[in-house]
Amino acid sequence: MAAKDWTVLATEKRALQEAVVPNDWILQNLPPKDTLNVMDFPENCGLLTAREIWITNTEVTGLLEKLSKGVWSAVEVTTAFAKRAVIAHQLVNCLTEIFIDRALKRAAELDEYLKTTGKVVGSLHGLPISFKDQVSIKGVESTIGYVSYIGRYAEKNAALVDVLESCGAIPYVKTNVPQTLMWGETYNHIFRRSLNPYNRSLTTGGSSGGEGALIALRGSPLGVGSDIAGSVRVPAAFNGLYGLRPSQGRVPYAGCVNTLEGQDSVLSVLGPISHSLGGIKGFIKGVVSQKPWLKDPLVVRKPWNEEEYLLADHGEGKQLCFGVMWDDEVVLPHPPIIRALQETKRALLAAGHQVIDWKPLKHGELNRALVSCSFASSVLCSLERLVDRLYCWRRRGLPNGAVSFGEPLIAEMYPVDGDVDRVVTGIPGHRAMPPGMSAYDAWQVQKKRRDLREEYLEHWNASIKLTGTGRPVDAIIAPAAHCTAPPHGGNRNVIRSTLVFTHFLLNIYRPPVYSMVWNALDYTALVLPTGLSVDPVLDLKKPPHTFFNDSDKANYELYDPEHFKGAPIAVQVVGRNLEEEAVIAMGEIVDSALKSTLQ
Amino acid sequence: MAAKDWTVLATEKRALQEAVVPNDWILQNLPPKDTLNVMDFPENCGLLTAREIWITNTEVTGLLEKLSKGVWSAVEVTTAFAKRAVIAHQLVNCLTEIFIDRALKRAAELDEYLKTTGKVVGSLHGLPISFKDQVSIKGVESTIGYVSYIGRYAEKNAALVDVLESCGAIPYVKTNVPQTLMWGETYNHIFRRSLNPYNRSLTTGGSSGGEGALIALRGSPLGVGSDIAGSVRVPAAFNGLYGLRPSQGRVPYAGCVNTLEGQDSVLSVLGPISHSLGGIKGFIKGVVSQKPWLKDPLVVRKPWNEEEYLLADHGEGKQLCFGVMWDDEVVLPHPPIIRALQETKRALLAAGHQVIDWKPLKHGELNRALVSCSFASSVLCSLERLVDRLYCWRRRGLPNGAVSFGEPLIAEMYPVDGDVDRVVTGIPGHRAMPPGMSAYDAWQVQKKRRDLREEYLEHWNASIKLTGTGRPVDAIIAPAAHCTAPPHGGNRNVIRSTLVFTHFLLNIYRPPVYSMVWNALDYTALVLPTGLSVDPVLDLKKPPHTFFNDSDKANYELYDPEHFKGAPIAVQVVGRNLEEEAVIAMGEIVDSALKSTLQ
Repeated sequence: MAAKDWTVLATEKRALQEAVVPNDWILQNLPPKDTLNVMDFPENCGLLTAREIWITNTEVTGLLEKLSKGVWSAVEVTTAFAKRAVIAHQLVNCLTEIFIDRALKRAAELDEYLKTTGKVVGSLHGLPISFKDQVSIKGVESTIGYVSYIGRYAEKNAALVDVLESCGAIPYVKTNVPQTLMWGETYNHIFRRSLNPYNRSLTTGGSSGGEGALIALRGSPLGVGSDIAGSVRVPAAFNGLYGLRPSQGRVPYAGCVNTLEGQDSVLSVLGPISHSLGGIKGFIKGVVSQKPWLKDPLVVRKPWNEEEYLLADHGEGKQLCFGVMWDDEVVLPHPPIIRALQETKRALLAAGHQVIDWKPLKHGELNRALVSCSFASSVLCSLERLVDRLYCWRRRGLPNGAVSFGEPLIAEMYPVDGDVDRVVTGIPGHRAMPPGMSAYDAWQVQKKRRDLREEYLEHWNASIKLTGTGRPVDAIIAPAAHCTAPPHGGNRNVIRSTLVFTHFLLNIYRPPVYSMVWNALDYTALVLPTGLSVDPVLDLKKPPHTFFNDSDKANYELYDPEHFKGAPIAVQVVGRNLEEEAVIAMGEIVDSALKSTLQ
Repeated sequence: MAAKDWTVLATEKRALQEAVVPNDWILQNLPPKDTLNVMDFPENCGLLTAREIWITNTEVTGLLEKLSKGVWSAVEVTTAFAKRAVIAHQLVNCLTEIFIDRALKRAAELDEYLKTTGKVVGSLHGLPISFKDQVSIKGVESTIGYVSYIGRYAEKNAALVDVLESCGAIPYVKTNVPQTLMWGETYNHIFRRSLNPYNRSLTTGGSSGGEGALIALRGSPLGVGSDIAGSVRVPAAFNGLYGLRPSQGRVPYAGCVNTLEGQDSVLSVLGPISHSLGGIKGFIKGVVSQKPWLKDPLVVRKPWNEEEYLLADHGEGKQLCFGVMWDDEVVLPHPPIIRALQETKRALLAAGHQVIDWKPLKHGELNRALVSCSFASSVLCSLERLVDRLYCWRRRGLPNGAVSFGEPLIAEMYPVDGDVDRVVTGIPGHRAMPPGMSAYDAWQVQKKRRDLREEYLEHWNASIKLTGTGRPVDAIIAPAAHCTAPPHGGNRNVIRSTLVFTHFLLNIYRPPVYSMVWNALDYTALVLPTGLSVDPVLDLKKPPHTFFNDSDKANYELYDPEHFKGAPIAVQVVGRNLEEEAVIAMGEIVDSALKSTLQ
């Protein structure tokens, strides 16, 4: 049968979204589109009360303290964040699903519970939490940017939602993602583009880009993103936030909607984004306190380890040795990032820690291995199925009910004619695409990756000879990305590959090398803001260097201090597998060192 | 160039093996081949002194106590086990590599260390440990049953060997495996067949069959096997021993030689086999004490958790509720196994625990998923490469140096004309084999398995409604296999599958459904001997039941009480993922309950 045109369906869905927002939260005094920095607008727009501003400017630790004592009710905290989320949405288009009524109902129950029993239900009592669109919440849609998914209401919560609700958290909004989830920017044909609130001509990153924009504007105190190559950390970095990529198996993923399923080698993981490390720590500690291994068979039976948090394996944190990776020998980061690394080094030395240079080991090979593992099936099969979803099928696996939507696959994230709500579509090379890998070939790249992981472990262990602490390097300090938030369409980075299918992928997917390498290694990686932002005076464009490759050259050419002005600058603190506790603790050390020297 | 015939190479290798054994350990009074039970022979053969018999009959906990106090030296303990291992080898052909000289050298160093410092080097100080052939030991070959691998000396230790050596353990022998490692019995063209010491007309199981036979004869106090579908547990069960299949990521595997590499879904794991649970516990506790996650990137950062061992999650072990799985609805176990389950139930009830029936959930589907995941690449690619190794290549990946060996692939484990040193060879269906899976199809079965794991988790959680303890079932008690040790060639079990490639696999690989299902789920599974053995009076053949399928019928027809007489009967205690501590503790409860009632 002939279906409604996909544009009609998308328009109807956006109208439904708008309809659930209270009328008096719709702003008439929005800044004009050419106002780039909108960070101050929520506090000045007149919609939030002074108390609501106070609440929404409070960090997670402070919120939880006030909530647990009943100083602030869950209802007023939820209301404040919901209002500010709707304001943020009008500025940077960050939300997908909005379900404030049920959130307020739950908030009232929590308030009643606290009043009646004098107790909190859990460590996150009354805290509103936002979720990336793919995290299923019972009764709510998870379109993840496919028109064909409109109308699919989740039958049950993702395991993480159950876990967070049992900690007392309150889901209230879901956030925007790119079509396919496989982009470092955030645009889809239903909800369109999310923008960077520091500079709306810049991208908010992706794929958890809605989260980044929302939290930056303090429309949420704590959000959940997912990360298979940097999708938590890139938006955190581009929006001046903290974002953690836990190792596989620490945070339950079961029940999320995804694009490429059944791949067992490099798993997408869920992780927190917040304004503070208190939010990151509260999230991880809360999640593991609920024995999530009883909710998701892929979760590791590992409770919060306070000894590891106290850095028992790192000399109690008294004198740490950090390894700074200035570049990965694949792409040289932009000047602001080098400056941030220098400032971080200076801050750590001033705080009494040691800093040595970190020599990257085969990062290019690791990145290629990750891409190969992640997309082994994609070109011939997964991507065609994915395209099927877009073009043909209303319901997955039900060709009898086949309906043609005609929603096009996105080819480029560049705005068409400067209009951020339109992108370049089409499927480059679709007809000419080579067949997918055989399982046998996939096993060979998987073996290659495993060998590289063993090599990297030895490489890290061998740093014991360089530190003088009697331990290998405690953590690596690295760029979070090869650039700060670039203009829309610019967050791409070509990696060279001898694999024929990757040649195709380069057209649709340009991976963030500085984040994905830690996914390839399954290391715990934390992005934290340095408090610095791009300054055209300090961050001059440098003369060309000897380029590592074409990607490096393209990245060099991308940089223009004026275009990147004001973008926050992050660094990454990287620990070993399943070292969440220690990485958070070392992140606190880096964070307070930076705050001491930069104040 | 023309190579030496594979039979010549194999004969030369066996001669080299014999040459390293001290002349006076070669027995002239071996029992005739038709003496089936050889369990008493080592103590009566005259080669072992009374003290050596005392030492080798002592369990791991006792050995470690004596060793740590210097009551017994590492040299005398190593000598005693080495002698008894060589005796065992002459009875049941269980060894591959023998390197007693270097073991004794290490033992002398350990004795010196203890004498000088008054301290042990680690928790396994002075304990000889045997290793399945695939575990690399520097300077020692790992042929894993391929003639083409003769002469490959390991350049470094597998991670586990380093870990155990740092605990003070002493490697001294490696043990026999089946060609390809993918059989439930133990035969290869180099070392030929390992036999079951309880009844040499029965199989010792596989693939860690050499370990099972060696340890049963007390030629080793503790051995290391590997398990992707039951290869630790089947030999443990068939030889009256304790054997643990830890969950993935608890024991380091890096550096082992293997057949099908690069498969990331269902990983082979290393696990201990011993006479006692003290041996199993000592192994796991020792291994994780060495932070093996710093040696192998796939190991989970999870130290020994004493609270879990004290059954904090299981009501402190005061009143447990076990679920007994009488059958898996795929294959009905033989009568002795049902009797052992009944005795176990009776013992647990007598010890004050609860026992309910465990309803299996989709075990057939789980087993099929495991086979599909494990062999996704095998038919077209892996198996052909494997055959290449056998037929063509001296060195993997070096077709320039191609040398034809002509070593045939084993088609059946049945002895030819009753000669246990000859088996049926050939490659059934080789020419007609269908192509291997695409990566996309592999992802679909991997997704299927992931979904089944989620379903099983919910199924287990839902048992809270049946137990009356306020907790779900604490552990499952299940058969270790569908039979006790069967006659050579009989350890097979057909599973039905709609996958075309599995039809081929059935010719070479008939999976042990009662063990492999827990690999599919990645549950911790412990095999323990009940102290019972097959008794033709008690274990009569039953009248035919309504068969679940052809496999079930074949298994029914296999049983003949007289043929299976004297074979040990085991049960399996199954916990959840990464629940090694609790499973060992619950195993101790089951073990002592059985010992109380059966004494």
